[in-house]
Formats: sequence, structure tokens, C-alpha cells
Amino acid sequence: MPNVAIVGATGAVGQEFLKILAERNFPVQDLRLLATERSAGKTLSWQGRQLEVQETTSESFKGIDIALFAGGSAGAEYARHAVESGAVVIDNSSAFRLDPDVPLIVPEVNPEDVAGHKGIIANPNCSTIIMVVVLKPILDLAGIRRVVVSTYQAVSGAGLEGIVELENQIKAWGKGEEAEARTFPYPIAFNVIPRIDVFQEGDYTKEEWKMVKETQKILHRPKLAVTATCVRVPVFRSHAESINLETEREVGVSEIREALRTAAGVIVDDDPVQDHYPMPLFSAGRDEVFVGRLRQDYSLNRGFNLWVTGDQIRKGAATNAVQIAELLL
Amino acid sequence: MPNVAIVGATGAVGQEFLKILAERNFPVQDLRLLATERSAGKTLSWQGRQLEVQETTSESFKGIDIALFAGGSAGAEYARHAVESGAVVIDNSSAFRLDPDVPLIVPEVNPEDVAGHKGIIANPNCSTIIMVVVLKPILDLAGIRRVVVSTYQAVSGAGLEGIVELENQIKAWGKGEEAEARTFPYPIAFNVIPRIDVFQEGDYTKEEWKMVKETQKILHRPKLAVTATCVRVPVFRSHAESINLETEREVGVSEIREALRTAAGVIVDDDPVQDHYPMPLFSAGRDEVFVGRLRQDYSLNRGFNLWVTGDQIRKGAATNAVQIAELLL
Repeated sequence: MPNVAIVGATGAVGQEFLKILAERNFPVQDLRLLATERSAGKTLSWQGRQLEVQETTSESFKGIDIALFAGGSAGAEYARHAVESGAVVIDNSSAFRLDPDVPLIVPEVNPEDVAGHKGIIANPNCSTIIMVVVLKPILDLAGIRRVVVSTYQAVSGAGLEGIVELENQIKAWGKGEEAEARTFPYPIAFNVIPRIDVFQEGDYTKEEWKMVKETQKILHRPKLAVTATCVRVPVFRSHAESINLETEREVGVSEIREALRTAAGVIVDDDPVQDHYPMPLFSAGRDEVFVGRLRQDYSLNRGFNLWVTGDQIRKGAATNAVQIAELLL
Repeated sequence: MPNVAIVGATGAVGQEFLKILAERNFPVQDLRLLATERSAGKTLSWQGRQLEVQETTSESFKGIDIALFAGGSAGAEYARHAVESGAVVIDNSSAFRLDPDVPLIVPEVNPEDVAGHKGIIANPNCSTIIMVVVLKPILDLAGIRRVVVSTYQAVSGAGLEGIVELENQIKAWGKGEEAEARTFPYPIAFNVIPRIDVFQEGDYTKEEWKMVKETQKILHRPKLAVTATCVRVPVFRSHAESINLETEREVGVSEIREALRTAAGVIVDDDPVQDHYPMPLFSAGRDEVFVGRLRQDYSLNRGFNLWVTGDQIRKGAATNAVQIAELLL
């Protein structure tokens, strides 16, 4: 059984790693919990074991077989040390995702790419994971010419701090106090913020570019036409996405629905008459990606609209990373 | 000076009618406040006048010159009575909007259409108003071939009940209680709901069809390719929209920005470096439509992304209706 390290064990994604390793009965010999100096010394219990959180250092990875990096600034610094120590790194940060030497994996979509790894495997951006799980069966069925996506992203995308910030702002509202914004650039309670991560080329945010470039890489379509607008909404966890797409070949709504119904990791939740459609309310805490509101787009030949939700911390981060680790076994 | 009636005076839009008539110094001889039986007998003060709310009946419109209908089920029933009594009706419901005999007006876009009215003038859907104010200058500049819109709509779109429901659900959350859903099909607090109004043809909601058909009518482009996905978000007032569009002619981002900057009723709020972009937080309570996040869409020739917000109760309803009344004077 492998020795496993979790880097960033006390954050939102790190905590979810612990849950998911247990839920999936992932075989673990030793489990080493690593975090910043601030969290070192805390004790966490996992599967009956009492584990002390240690500060991450370049020496932390001796004897480790698989290192799950929750993301954040520690990733890029220590991933190389982990690889030099002989570990395979599964990294949730954006540092290595577009590196041609690093496979970028969604197990339902491109598991075969794991084979080429050189010690680091990247876990994609949360919004991208949720989208490609649904795009892949459509790509296989009818090809995809272009994707226009607008996101509705939960505060959990900014980790525990994002969750706490929304809670605090809601509590302040209850007391008639001003909402203080630290993690997000403006108050997120009762607001939506059309900026996630920093601004880059063409006035797109880094998050929007991730959805373009990571999608192209994961789907092996380096020229796929994708455009994104990424928006934060006051939801605790589970992202949602409004996706408009154009297929390459003629296809009917019912064929797309059937392809999605049989796709791994996808739940079709699409029955308007019964008021069934995906919502964060129901996808939070789940591992699958939910899709509904599937419609022919009458404004375009071979155009379709669909609506997707997925738990950002689980399938969008921790579950996907543990699934990658399972591919390695 | 005209005698004015407000039908639905005690609701969210009706209350805003009162504010906006005062703010804009709209000339009013007599002001008659009408509502359902439930609200009759209440006294409201307006500009120093104490006005008793009366139940709307077929006799309510004698002597009235302009009748502002806030929307809702009373509209269709009483609008004809008002017209027979000699009033011009400005109706915020969807009952008459697509009637070829009824002008559908956004004063910044198609004020000239008022001329053809036969007693009823329709106020468009809130999301549509906010979108067309921004589309019109782009249409004039470069033509528009196709629009893909995803909305982020405030609970005020369901009137005071929608606002109260979100407040109550948030308070329930604070006490650790279950959120009760009455106005919306599911809890809206910390959730997003991809259904507004009833489902119709092609599994689109009525709200989505309004954005297609009303936009075509207002812009005098009956074949304009528009597709919409309409989503409720936990925001009190001010809608937001992510708009992707394809122009007919080559045009640069800077030309579009300039056209928007000089357009009536539009505020360009688009400076990523300074973290300036439209948000409900800032557009709530304002009459203008805010636009930002303007970007070339690299996935398409002549494609652009933009992000729009506007106060649903003001420009999306009451302000627009009062502006129509001003056109009549």
C-alpha cells in the first residue's frame, strides 16, 4: 500500500482529500499531513488514526509514494522536492497544468494521458473539470466546433476563507452591519462578482483563460473554440455553468441526452415538467456532474444549450485528484 | 396635467412608480392608487398627499389619462376597461407585449414606436430592457448576427414576495432552520435556480422566450438570432447578464466601447486594472444600465463578450414605464 502525503491538509480541499480517501477506501499505508507553519502541530483524526499536521519542508516527502497537493502557493515550491524524493505529485494548483510535460487529467475524459507523466500530474481547474466531463460525450458523439460558457461559481472556490467570508457577510447583514470584503474584491453576499482570479490578456481573467486552455488540452483539441465569462455567486459550494455549444455534425437533442445518460460521472437531471434541473442545492456534496436544461438552440444550426452543476471541492478538486491517484495504483 | 392611476400600487414595482414619478417631477393632477381588495383601504403618502388605496374595478379609470399597470394578473383584465375609459395604459405585464397592435417600448431604443399605439403600450420584460439598451448602440454601429445570453436575475423579479422570501430563508439559515420555498420552486438562499416562469416550447422557459421575442420586436429585427438561459440568483435587486454576441460587420472593441459610452441610459464601467466592472451591488437603485467586461471573443470572428447589470425594479420596470409616460406628454 502506498504512503500518501497531503499538502495543505487543513484547507477546504485538503479536508475533502481526507474524507474522500476514506469514502473510497483508498489504500493508505502511512498518511502524512502537511501544511503551513501556522497549522503545524494540530492533530487530525482519520480512520481511527491520530495524525499530527507537520510543516511542509523540502524534506517532507521521504518515503512518500503519492503526494496530493491541495493547491495554493505551496504547490510549485514543493512539488519538485516531492518528485525528487520519488513521489508522484497530483497537484491541484494551476502551476503545472499547461506544462507540455505534465498530464492534465480528468479520469472520465483522458485517463490514458496519465501514462506519460514525469512525476507530476495536474488536477484541472474546478470549472473546467465540471465542463469537460459533460463536453466529452458530446465531442465523441458529434464533435464540438465552439463553446460559450458563463459560470456561476461558489465561494468555496476561494477555499475555507471564501466560505467564512460569505458566512460573515451574511451575519453582518443580519445585524444591519456593513459587509467586510477581504477574500473577494467586493462583498459577495447578495451580489455577483464578474471577476475570478487576476486579469490577463484581452481583459480575460486567469480563470476564464483556464477554461479555454485547459479544456483544449484535456480534450486534445488545441484549437477548440472556447470563450468564457467567470462569475462568483453567493453559493457556498457547487459551481454551475450555462453552456452554449455548436456541434460539428448534425445531432438531435435526444441523442445528446442519451450520450450523457450513459457517460461516466454524469447524472442527467432534466425533466422540466417535474421541475427537475441541476442546482447547487442538490449537487453540493456529490461526486457526479449534473446536467439538465438541455435544449436545441434555435439561433444556430447544430446549436445546443445546457446547464451543468458540480461540487467544486469534490469533483472540481479533491475527488478528481483521488481518482487520478486510483489510476496510478 | 394628466390624471394618473397606478394599478398594483402596493407591490414592489408599484411602490417604485411612486418614487420615480416624484423623482422625475412627473406632472400629476390626480393620482389614483389601485390594488387588489386585500390592500384596499391602506393610506400611502406621496408628495405631501395622503392617498387611499382603492380596489381596482372596471369603473376605476374614469377621468384617468395615464394608467400605469405594475404587472401581474390584474393587468390583462383591467387594461381594456382603462382604454375604454379613455386612458392610455402602460402595462408592465407580459399580456400584450407581442400583440402587433401594441407598441413595446424602451425609450432609449425605439421611442418612435409609441406613435402607433391604440391605447395600450407595453413595458418589456426586465431582462430584455436591460439587454436591448446595450444592444442597440452595437446594432447601429456594426449590426448584430447572433446573441447568446445567460442571466443572473435578482429575486425582486418576483416582486416583494421574492425579496421577503430570500430574507426569510437567510434568517432561517442564521437560526439553523430549514429554508421554506413558496415564491420560488426551491430555496434561493445560497442556491441558483435555472428556471424563471413556466416551461414552454423546446423546454425553454417563458422568461427565455421573452428575451428572444421581445428583443426581436423592440429592435425591429424579427429574425435576429437570440438564445437565452435565465437563472435566478440570491441577489435582492438588479439583474446581471453575460452576453456573447456576433456582429455583422468588422468592428473593434474600442469602437464598441465608444458607442456604448455615448449611448443614452448606459454607463460604461470597464476598467479591469482598477477592478471596475458592473455588479448588482452598485447598480441597485440606479436608472442606468451598466456595461463592462467588454472583450473580443477569440473563439469567433466578430465575436464579443460583455457583462451588463441593471436595476430590475427601476430601469427593468418602473423607470422604463415612467419614461414611456414622458414620451406621451
